[in-house]
Order: sequence, then structure tokens, then C-alpha cells
Amino acid sequence: MKPIQIGLLGIGTVGSGTFNVLKRNQEEIKRRAGRGIEITMVADLDMDRARSLVGPDVNVVNDARAVIANPDIDIVVELIGGYGVAKALVMEAIAAGKHVVTANKALLAVHGTEIFAAASAKGVMVAFEAAVAGGIPIIKALREGLTANSIQWIAGIINGTTNFILSEMRDKGLDFDVVLKEAQRLGYAEADPTFDIEGVDAAHKVTLMSAIAFGIPVQFDKAHVEGITQLSGTDIRYAEQLGYRIKLLGITRRTEAGVELRVHPTLVPSKRLIANVEGAMNAVVVQGDAVGTTLYYGKGAGSEPTASAVIADLVDVTRLHTADPHHRVPHLAFQPDAMSDLQVLPMSEVVTSYYLRLRVADEAGVLAKVTGLLAEAGISIDALLQRRAEEVSADLAVAGAASTDLIILTHDTREGVMNRALADMQGLSSVLAPITRIRKEELN
Amino acid sequence: MKPIQIGLLGIGTVGSGTFNVLKRNQEEIKRRAGRGIEITMVADLDMDRARSLVGPDVNVVNDARAVIANPDIDIVVELIGGYGVAKALVMEAIAAGKHVVTANKALLAVHGTEIFAAASAKGVMVAFEAAVAGGIPIIKALREGLTANSIQWIAGIINGTTNFILSEMRDKGLDFDVVLKEAQRLGYAEADPTFDIEGVDAAHKVTLMSAIAFGIPVQFDKAHVEGITQLSGTDIRYAEQLGYRIKLLGITRRTEAGVELRVHPTLVPSKRLIANVEGAMNAVVVQGDAVGTTLYYGKGAGSEPTASAVIADLVDVTRLHTADPHHRVPHLAFQPDAMSDLQVLPMSEVVTSYYLRLRVADEAGVLAKVTGLLAEAGISIDALLQRRAEEVSADLAVAGAASTDLIILTHDTREGVMNRALADMQGLSSVLAPITRIRKEELN
Repeated sequence: MKPIQIGLLGIGTVGSGTFNVLKRNQEEIKRRAGRGIEITMVADLDMDRARSLVGPDVNVVNDARAVIANPDIDIVVELIGGYGVAKALVMEAIAAGKHVVTANKALLAVHGTEIFAAASAKGVMVAFEAAVAGGIPIIKALREGLTANSIQWIAGIINGTTNFILSEMRDKGLDFDVVLKEAQRLGYAEADPTFDIEGVDAAHKVTLMSAIAFGIPVQFDKAHVEGITQLSGTDIRYAEQLGYRIKLLGITRRTEAGVELRVHPTLVPSKRLIANVEGAMNAVVVQGDAVGTTLYYGKGAGSEPTASAVIADLVDVTRLHTADPHHRVPHLAFQPDAMSDLQVLPMSEVVTSYYLRLRVADEAGVLAKVTGLLAEAGISIDALLQRRAEEVSADLAVAGAASTDLIILTHDTREGVMNRALADMQGLSSVLAPITRIRKEELN
Repeated sequence: MKPIQIGLLGIGTVGSGTFNVLKRNQEEIKRRAGRGIEITMVADLDMDRARSLVGPDVNVVNDARAVIANPDIDIVVELIGGYGVAKALVMEAIAAGKHVVTANKALLAVHGTEIFAAASAKGVMVAFEAAVAGGIPIIKALREGLTANSIQWIAGIINGTTNFILSEMRDKGLDFDVVLKEAQRLGYAEADPTFDIEGVDAAHKVTLMSAIAFGIPVQFDKAHVEGITQLSGTDIRYAEQLGYRIKLLGITRRTEAGVELRVHPTLVPSKRLIANVEGAMNAVVVQGDAVGTTLYYGKGAGSEPTASAVIADLVDVTRLHTADPHHRVPHLAFQPDAMSDLQVLPMSEVVTSYYLRLRVADEAGVLAKVTGLLAEAGISIDALLQRRAEEVSADLAVAGAASTDLIILTHDTREGVMNRALADMQGLSSVLAPITRIRKEELN
């Protein structure tokens, strides 16, 4: 049987990894897939670079539409990224009857509903294992490995840049800005790191996981997104003293009221396996009603780890491309006519526990006032630490005055209730600086 | 479309879990699979108990062959276990054109080649996700999620009983016998725990993983199998002091000379994620050339976790049962006509590093003699600890005499070379007791 022919749109880091791994392991992959899989055409604006990467046997063009128009191409791999031209090309590839494999989480988290509907109507597959957690086969685990389960929640370290930064902040006691610069120097953070450090990239990924876990449409616009730029070394150290690590987690949870969908720094008990995932590594915890807790760990980015996921999709598509469409795994895990109408909850409706740090004047009665306001709001306290303030922050109006840090861990509270209590506490004259609030998850 | 009809052979712990989860999550599973999946017939010798578990709507019989003979049954789930009647029934189910789902690692590790060949010839699937690591979808990860990779090695905690025992021994400083009794009381160990504590169960599982990772036939008879019954608390403590934990690992590695296939207690660096997998939990580390290190963690046994894997297989078979057989995932990951002829290495050819503990007379020159013998054998030393012996073992001939523990970590050594060096060291008059030898893996 002649090999499956692949057209690559964009040959950057992931594209060249895909080309190299497919070539290096071509015999072994063919022995698995039952059929050869070959990249025969590559579109890239930098044709010279593309040519130098793939050699003389591959047709290199600068027009992605030439790949889509080529009748010999069975699968189009979109590695351009972003919402713009990538969307047009994916839609055109589908319209041309091509199967699509993509690593583009941004595109799918925002336009997935439209793209998957077009693919289903045309009878082609859009596979996207590489879009979430790089080389970890988490999409497959969720869509196929855990089909028995009513999935209850997912919590993942799904952005390597921010996990690297948080690990370094904790290890070396450094501040965010310093570590970010180091991460950029080492190639763990991009020149413009906004999407990573502001949590947007993680939110794209958790949006996709939420959809396939709960059978809801992708709804990136409903996600609560908070990054790590405001996180201080002080809170990392206090968390440590209380038995927690701070990780940027993408969290999605099914409740009776609706689906939680959120990205934010999170205190996690230090003894949890996921709390010990360090550096640029990713890990996703999935809780199902039958299986209990499972965890998936690996490299979430990089040339060959991501290529590993792209190629796994190529093998899957190769296996299934002549099968009846209704035998294929549904794009969003559930049959398109059996999606759930569960709504994504506004953040104010989310119930979680909290870490609060209040810098307060070192005077009698402060603790009573603060805990009084929490009690009034019905928020119960799990643990409380009082520490002489480590540092006097620049925004502290009464600089030089004696101050104390109150660190409070709460029990589960509705976020809207917490927001009002925070506003009340912030209004106290003894509270000298903006209150730090970090969410906490026990993940058990 | 009418539901897929399942016949259950044996309704013990896993069978009742499968029945309960399928029933509880039937709507959600149908929304995923695109078709209902129902257990309509159950065979069990204890018909009264079976009837009480499944209620009046399911056909309960005491003859498994009545299930196989029923033309309405699409998939037979074998949950009897063992090599005996289970093998005959699986072969008969295949001959009758039924797809088979099984959790029976012993059966497949020993008779898999014959069973898979019969299934391929008949055009039916034999699915076995539940046979390895319970609810963790590791078979799917290996067969489908990591198809891009040349897999280099796998190391797994794949027996919950022994991991529970080792965790307790370390946590509480207790001896093996004491903890085994506790594990039996708590239901973590069976009345006859031989298969677990002697490593046989783990060897069945790693045999299956080895076959699908490297494309070789299942060869349980070639596995090196060593359990934890000889392990002492002393060694767990010394390992801890050196920065290691002792885990019972199933290990399989591809080398140029052949495939390593072995189960034995293993020192693992404490900082590795897998070293921190405690209690009855399982975890498998897979190293692929493209993806790097990945890890899969979850419950390796129990009613509903194992049912989760059985049902995932049922959904897969439901999806693929009308597809062309050549589109299905090959039983052993590689196409039957593209298996590898790599041989399983005898243990003497395995290269690994070692922890050695020698109880020696507290006299001058002993260390020089021991290290001299190691040097002669070309074995280089990575670390060395000398400790006053914690306890005088009962088998110590010169009980009461002053003695010292020499703990040595070696660099990589061929096992045959180590065996000869051990014999030479054991022959020294200053060596007072049998030398403890535990293998060590860095897993990086």
C-alpha cells in the first residue's frame, strides 16, 4: 500500500521535529500503523530554511493553499499557530476533504465548535493531541482511556514556562522578574511571554480538556484567566510553611450548578504528586468517578515531544481514515448530537478555599476585626499564621511603621462571598496594603 | 441502534464493578460511544450471588459456554482469571467470533501469542487494558499515544500490594512479615499473597508492556522475577540515607543486544516522581526517544478502577467492531507480520548499577579486600557508606562479635560480572553474613 502523504503547513520548531521523528522512526511507525507515513510537501514562507530542513525529496512551496489543493495529500498538518490565517487554512483543508492534525490550542479553544462541525459535516477528522500538554497523550486518555467515567474534575500544570518560573522562584528564593529574564535567556520563555505568564495559553488548553471531559462546546471566552505576574516570593515561602506549593493550574470541575473553568495560581498540598512536578514539565490530574485519581506527566512543549503527539495523531488518522465516520472517536469525546448543555459558571459562583495574606498594623484588635469580618460572611478559617512582615512593600503608605503579616487559610467558600469579605477587610484602617488572595485546592 | 450486548464470565470484584459502573454511567457512556453498552448475560458458578448483584433483567447462568453460544452476545468479558478454564473459554469465544475483553494478565503473558493469533485469524479483537495497572490507560498510551517513538525503556510500580507493603515498611520502620499481616487485614494483600509478593503478578504485567513497547512476542518464561520477601528494613533505611527509595519495579529496556525483562526490588532516586508513589497506587514511567520521559499514575487494582479499564475497552471494541480489521489497533501494537525478532536477554547479560550491603567483621583491611575484589572485576564504586551494624541477624555465625555494615553503590555493571564478584566477596572470611544485593536504576 502506498504511504499516507502528509502536507505540512509551517516548519518551525514542531514542524521540523515532526519531520525528523517521522524520518528517524519511519520503519517502526510503519510497523505499528501498517502503512508508511511520509511528509511529501511543506509550505513555509522561508522556503530556503524549509528546503535545508527537509532535503531535496520533499516538495517545498511558499503557498499553503498549494498543499491543500494537492490531491495526493491525505492529511494536512497545521503548525502555523494563532487564530488568523491558520483558521482560514484549516477550514479550507476541511472543505477540500483533507484530514487535519494541528497543535493549535488557541485556534481550537476559540473556534473549535465551528471547525469540528465543518469537519463532521465533511466526514474528515481534526486531531489535536499536540494542542494540550505536548507529548503527554492526555487527549487520548480523556477521550478514550477514561470513557467509563463520569469525570469530576481536571487540574493541570499545562504551561511549562510558568512552571519553570515558579520552580525557580521557590528553589532560589528569587522574584518573578528576575526569573522571567533567566527563563527567556534559557529559552523557556518567549521574547513576548504574555500568553504564558498571563495564563492565556493554559486557559486555551484547559478549555479543550473541559469540553472533552464534560461534553460541552469549547468556550474560551467563559474561562477565568489569571497569570503569575503578581505572585511574590513571600507567598511562595508562606505557602511552603503551611505545607503547600503554588502552581499555575488549569482547573475544570463539574458541579450540579455548572462547569468551573479557570486558570490561576493555586496552593496545592506539597505531598501531592503534582506539587512535585518541577521545571518545565507538565502534569494533568484527572478525577473520574470509577477510576479515582489518575495523573499524566511529561514534557509539555519542545520540538520532539510535541512532534510525538502530532505523529500519534497521524497514526490514528491513518488507521481510521477509511473507516466509517461513526466509528471514529468524536472530536469532543461525545457524539455531536449528544453534547451537554451544562453552562460554564461565572467565577463568582465557583466554590474553593483560599490563602489570604494581609499586611496589617502591629496593634491590638486587628486579628479580631479581620476574623470578625470573615465570620460575618460565614467564611470559616482552616489555619492561621501570624508573622512579622518580611519586607515593607513599596506601596505601603505608612512605610516604616511596625507591621505584621496575617496569613489565613479558609475552608470552602463561594468566590462571590469571598470577594465581598475581601472588600470589607480591605476597608479596615489597620490593613496597610492590598490583600493577597490565592486560591487553594486539596486535589483529593 | 440496539445496544451492544455484553456477556460476563465471572462476576467477582471486577465483574460487579463493571456492571455497576456501566449501569450508573450508562447515559454518559452511550453519549461517548454512540451506542448503548449493556451486560445482558452473566455466567457465574454462584448464581444466587450473581442474581443478587445484577437484578432480574439480566440472564444469569452457571455455564460460561451458554454465554459464548448466545448469538445475541457481541462481546465476551472474561473475568475468571488464571490459565486454566479461562484460556479454554477465551479460545472458544474467539472461535465463536466473539470479541473478547479480559483483565487476565496471567493468561495473556503466558498464552498471548496463541490467543492473539487466533483472534487475528478470526477477525476479532482481544482487548486487555485492565490487565496492566488497573484503571491507568497505559496499554492505550503505549499502543496508540506513543506510536511516534522508539520506546527505550519502561519502569513501573505495577503491583499495589507490594507497593503498599514497601511504603508501610519505610513509613513505620516495620519488617516485611508484620506489614504483610497488616496488608492482609486491610484487604491490600490476599490470603495467599505469593503471586504479589514474589513478583509474579508484576512480571505478567511487564511482560505485556514489553511486548507492545518493542513489538516482540509475550515471553513470560524469559522474565527475571524477584519479589520483596527478602527485603529488610535495614536496607530501606540505608537506601534512604543515600537518597534512594526501594520500589518493586517491573522493568523492560531495549538494548542493542536484546530486551531486558525483569522484576525486582530497585533503588530509585528519592527525587523522582515514581519514588514518591505511595501506598497501593501504581505508576508507569515510559521513556521514548521523541517524547522523553512520561509517567502514568493511578489505582492499579480494585473493583471500579479496573472496571474503568474494562469499559474503556468495551467502548473501543464498540467503536471498531464493524471497521475493517486492518484499521484496528494491533493486539501487540505492531502489525502481526512486522514483529521484531529481538531476543529477551538472560539476566546475566543485563547491565545495571547495584546497592550492596556486606556485614563484615570490624577489623583492619576488610574494606581494602572488598574494594580490591570489586576493582579486579572492573566494577567501579559510586558511593560507599560504613555504619556500625544496626542489628545482629539471627543467621550470623559469630553472633556478638563486633561487626560493621559496608554499603556500596556501584556504577553500571553487567550482572554476570557482579555475580562472580559477589561470590568472591562472599568467600572472604571477614564477610559474616550473606551479602545483600539490590539493583539500582537512575530512571533519567
